Amino acid sequence: MKGLWLQDRKMSYREDLPMPLLEPDEVLIKVLLAGVCSTDLEMLKGYYDFSGVPGHEFVGLVQDDNGHPGLLGKRIIGDINISCGECERCLQQEPSQCMRRKTLGIFDYDGVFSEFCKLPAKNLTVVPDSVSDVLAVFTEPTAAALRILDQVQVKPSDRVIVVGAGRLGLLIAQALKNTSCDLKVVVRRPEPAAILAGLGIRAVYADEIRGELADIVVEVTGSSEGFELSRSLTRARGTLVLKSTFAGDVNVNLSKLVVDEITLVGSRCGNYPAGLRALTSGLIQVGEMVDSVYSLQQGIEAIERAGQPGVLKVLIRP
Amino acid sequence: MKGLWLQDRKMSYREDLPMPLLEPDEVLIKVLLAGVCSTDLEMLKGYYDFSGVPGHEFVGLVQDDNGHPGLLGKRIIGDINISCGECERCLQQEPSQCMRRKTLGIFDYDGVFSEFCKLPAKNLTVVPDSVSDVLAVFTEPTAAALRILDQVQVKPSDRVIVVGAGRLGLLIAQALKNTSCDLKVVVRRPEPAAILAGLGIRAVYADEIRGELADIVVEVTGSSEGFELSRSLTRARGTLVLKSTFAGDVNVNLSKLVVDEITLVGSRCGNYPAGLRALTSGLIQVGEMVDSVYSLQQGIEAIERAGQPGVLKVLIRP
Repeated sequence: MKGLWLQDRKMSYREDLPMPLLEPDEVLIKVLLAGVCSTDLEMLKGYYDFSGVPGHEFVGLVQDDNGHPGLLGKRIIGDINISCGECERCLQQEPSQCMRRKTLGIFDYDGVFSEFCKLPAKNLTVVPDSVSDVLAVFTEPTAAALRILDQVQVKPSDRVIVVGAGRLGLLIAQALKNTSCDLKVVVRRPEPAAILAGLGIRAVYADEIRGELADIVVEVTGSSEGFELSRSLTRARGTLVLKSTFAGDVNVNLSKLVVDEITLVGSRCGNYPAGLRALTSGLIQVGEMVDSVYSLQQGIEAIERAGQPGVLKVLIRP
Repeated sequence: MKGLWLQDRKMSYREDLPMPLLEPDEVLIKVLLAGVCSTDLEMLKGYYDFSGVPGHEFVGLVQDDNGHPGLLGKRIIGDINISCGECERCLQQEPSQCMRRKTLGIFDYDGVFSEFCKLPAKNLTVVPDSVSDVLAVFTEPTAAALRILDQVQVKPSDRVIVVGAGRLGLLIAQALKNTSCDLKVVVRRPEPAAILAGLGIRAVYADEIRGELADIVVEVTGSSEGFELSRSLTRARGTLVLKSTFAGDVNVNLSKLVVDEITLVGSRCGNYPAGLRALTSGLIQVGEMVDSVYSLQQGIEAIERAGQPGVLKVLIRP
């Protein structure tokens, strides 16, 4: 089959990839549309040691249900965490933190930048007919944005600052706006500021906000400068949510966290049905976020495009 | 009056210190007994830029009530945070995080290593007659240990590891033990291990515990090695409490906190009446923790003694 292939930090387009081999719990999926995420770009820089088909944001069609009823021909999205079902975290109903997990297109499990992919049947959620492919492909990052609200109670009276307005930051901003909190988003460019304005969300530049204090700050830059700005904006006894992975170690003044009694919350994957609900109901909108759509043959170009500064969501349609 | 004096990172004993000058909200206190804390030692290394009388752990007698009823001649302990009563945190009933606070013997307010000190009347708690001076002087660090339980729900079924068994670690261990949790304390020496054994708390060396995972880990070493060990012992979605200040910045792999969705909680001062209750009732015991008692004249010697490895609580009796 056709697809992208990552090996030794190099991405190539190939037409000789083997079809996915199904285990008994897995189904075969025809990929309808896939999204390029910052994590895919990080893998090219070697932050994850992965060889195989990259990509984990997708909507697809079940091509072979492998004996799992109710799925054949259904349009689905899927949880990227392939869990063992037996470890301590799985038994605690926290399969996304499975201690022996594989991760779709990221760790030890081929991803979605190809004609077909596979996933365990238990990972799938059927997409309602009313939801377009373009909307459905945002389920994974939307669920990740909503994950913050699974972890932290954001109150209508809270002052909240999101630092970073890229692909994920724009989804997080909308998830937080829906709480009626007093929200500001730190941007570096006019384009996301315009999108935020269209959504009724206040955008500010870093220089305009220094010295302010918020109850909850969400770091979505993944840079040490972004972390330091975020920490400085967090009030004593406030909460600082880390929503991006960082390249290498970051120098952190842990004493400031102690003296100010700040709570730092690491945040990863969310609940996929919740993500789909937010997109279906319009609580989270992605219309302004699609930059471009490429074919699989143009996949390398798509990845390059997604890596350019300020570019939002690049999609790949196999 | 007699007392210790800190200036330019140097401690001296002086007999010509001026008596404290009282503001209308303050009372004059005769210091009965004071304790040396790691923070006092850090100030000598210049981590806090403070000139004045150091020391903040104490029990005293109200010598001049300055018109505040019910305090004259009473034995008291006192909250070290001198709060403004007007800022955002004060209005939120969080005076220990007052944004304009002074701190007894640490920041902009003379401390207790002297014959007399002062504090606002609102900071004081009267000590019951049944409580000895030696017990009462542990109120401040005991309150700081209990602060963890104000911030984090520690359940009887939780696996908890305390990393560090010094002055504060031994109090924290007892506070946590009282929750019936499954507790281990990482020690580096046989002496604290023996004290912990006497309290029915399991002590382990770092090499014995590597690879284990706990629901809650408390870092009380203030060292980057201690932080890294503590992080590695925290399970996915677990809580890592930071209870010590760190010298300088620490290199932190923030991505691990994100991917494992760890919550980091900075923890500082606690509730003084609660600390006093725990000591009075015997829920937290300090009998094995007193290393030695010095006079003010021997104060420099006392500070030096407290700085030696493995030495627990050094007291100064003016």
